Amino acid sequence: MIAPALREEIARRYGTPAVVIDLDRVARNIARLQAACDAAGVANRPHIKTHKSPIIARMQIEAGARGITCQKLGEAEVMAASGIDDILVSYNLIGPHVVERLGRLLRESPARITVAADNPVTVAGLPDAAQAGGRTLDVVVECDTGRKRAGVETPGEAVALARDIASRPGLAFAGLMLYPPPGGVAAAQAFLDEAQAGLAEHGLSARIVSTGGTPNIPEIGQIRGTTEHRAGTVIFNDRMMIEAGVATLDDCALAVLARVVSRAGAERGILDAGSKTLTSDTGGGLDGHGLMPDHPGARIAGFAEEHGFLDLRACAERPPVGTLVEVVPNHVCVVVNMVNELVAVRDGAIVGTIPVAARGLIA
Amino acid sequence: MIAPALREEIARRYGTPAVVIDLDRVARNIARLQAACDAAGVANRPHIKTHKSPIIARMQIEAGARGITCQKLGEAEVMAASGIDDILVSYNLIGPHVVERLGRLLRESPARITVAADNPVTVAGLPDAAQAGGRTLDVVVECDTGRKRAGVETPGEAVALARDIASRPGLAFAGLMLYPPPGGVAAAQAFLDEAQAGLAEHGLSARIVSTGGTPNIPEIGQIRGTTEHRAGTVIFNDRMMIEAGVATLDDCALAVLARVVSRAGAERGILDAGSKTLTSDTGGGLDGHGLMPDHPGARIAGFAEEHGFLDLRACAERPPVGTLVEVVPNHVCVVVNMVNELVAVRDGAIVGTIPVAARGLIA
Repeated sequence: MIAPALREEIARRYGTPAVVIDLDRVARNIARLQAACDAAGVANRPHIKTHKSPIIARMQIEAGARGITCQKLGEAEVMAASGIDDILVSYNLIGPHVVERLGRLLRESPARITVAADNPVTVAGLPDAAQAGGRTLDVVVECDTGRKRAGVETPGEAVALARDIASRPGLAFAGLMLYPPPGGVAAAQAFLDEAQAGLAEHGLSARIVSTGGTPNIPEIGQIRGTTEHRAGTVIFNDRMMIEAGVATLDDCALAVLARVVSRAGAERGILDAGSKTLTSDTGGGLDGHGLMPDHPGARIAGFAEEHGFLDLRACAERPPVGTLVEVVPNHVCVVVNMVNELVAVRDGAIVGTIPVAARGLIA
Repeated sequence: MIAPALREEIARRYGTPAVVIDLDRVARNIARLQAACDAAGVANRPHIKTHKSPIIARMQIEAGARGITCQKLGEAEVMAASGIDDILVSYNLIGPHVVERLGRLLRESPARITVAADNPVTVAGLPDAAQAGGRTLDVVVECDTGRKRAGVETPGEAVALARDIASRPGLAFAGLMLYPPPGGVAAAQAFLDEAQAGLAEHGLSARIVSTGGTPNIPEIGQIRGTTEHRAGTVIFNDRMMIEAGVATLDDCALAVLARVVSRAGAERGILDAGSKTLTSDTGGGLDGHGLMPDHPGARIAGFAEEHGFLDLRACAERPPVGTLVEVVPNHVCVVVNMVNELVAVRDGAIVGTIPVAARGLIA
């Protein structure tokens, strides 16, 4: 992704390990996701947890996204402050702190705000936010159709929670939020159809049916009734997405530029990117802690906090101390979260840095 | 560590997941490390990579530490700017960017600055920093005595590199830096003795012999000739240190205060602390992603970025949605690195927040 001369220039200007994004590839990934949504007749609501940057969110909106998805209230606040005007917080917001902040956001921002809930405790807290905000709060019911994460497990529970939402002052039942595992279209369809029938019996209907996931992009719209899709990782892609078959190395728009800082043994070395840069996320059990496209035999076998342990036994040309190498992370979302700023390049030249504005926040 | 009423107060004021430190325990841990160093007649040079906070570094200095250790140049800059006056950067600093910044630090800060090197490429770059700084730069040779991380592998290489350093304009050979694995006293002693003999043959001597590690605290001073020790994790401790037998749960001064935000299944739940808070660091292969002292049967079985997957099958009292729980991380150093600020408590009350000032920097 980064030509040798550009590597030297980035390292000279910013140091290493630098998290570098290629804005040409970012634009291409944005366009591809938008095209997939357009082709399916489904609104695009990209998940900004991957980049946490209002600058990049703005690129997504300008390419046609209806709005964005956030995973934390703090992310939503940062995005709203930058002028993004349609935000889904796809998370149970619980407790007086976030309820008060949500109320303030509703009061002070003109943005359309939607939140998710999968249980009555969450729902019971939200009317205070709506009241403080002085406007109705849209709430979607998070539904689980196989992932066993958050989300009600049955259509009956979804209907009951929708009725709970609809009965509360200041809240509006807005729809259903799904996050099916890839290949889970049939199960999600069965859940959705039963839930919609149950809603109809009570005079309710789901204006929003939201699906999610980058691996699910090939399935966008296959669940009948889908109105919008939330994909995050596709903005940059990573080794997990290559493994999942939804990206090629050429689609990877982010790499960590790291330096070989030690070669104390003939068959091993140390990168200045350790677990505080690349993270210990295995990407669902991948071998090694990232791909090094220029050194196919090299393996990042382990970590200290600022040390990546290079196993060079299978490496034909072993990089000497000082070499700048590019690492495609296992999981890009957690790597972006480690740094205050990304270094952006375009057309083979440095553009500048992009703050990861919404990282490091408590709530 | 955090009483129920205080949990509610922290969650109300800051939200969750909050990274909370108990300053009483921090002070106790600082005193214990200082006492161990004092008893061994070895200077205390705590590693600030664990807390990245000048406020906490100042507490360590005031308790008797001679100086501090940093793992990145950016950490050293932040610490020097706060008035810390004796800093070891225990890392190979390579490339024009860090050399220039190191020169500026030497020129603008009155602090004593020492850096480490394990190879001639690092050493060859340092004279430019010394020249720009207008003063001599102390360099220690990093030696590996069993960990296979960075560090020259033989005493002969250590002597050769020391001679290289001593021969360069503006550089002074200052000593040897070791990081033996726990139980590695004999191997380190053999390495050190042979290196010192070799140095003497060339008219050199190691003013500094630096050892490191929290698990190595019981061995401080056992390597004859040790002048100082670098321990980081002990400031807070964690599950790894409990497993290593060098801390008890009572010594753990940091916990993540998280909330149960979903209980979609009877035997499982979701915490709002996922891999973007607790990190995927297994602490060297520990089972689960942290300890929950109040819920001994509960296991953090997996992660999404903002979801901790609770396995509650073995849990007698399963925490309902909304419950605030305390999680002692597997590895505390990487958890501190995830957040912009720590919430500090003392004597059962909130003191305020402490910025993790040196986190998120590129170099």
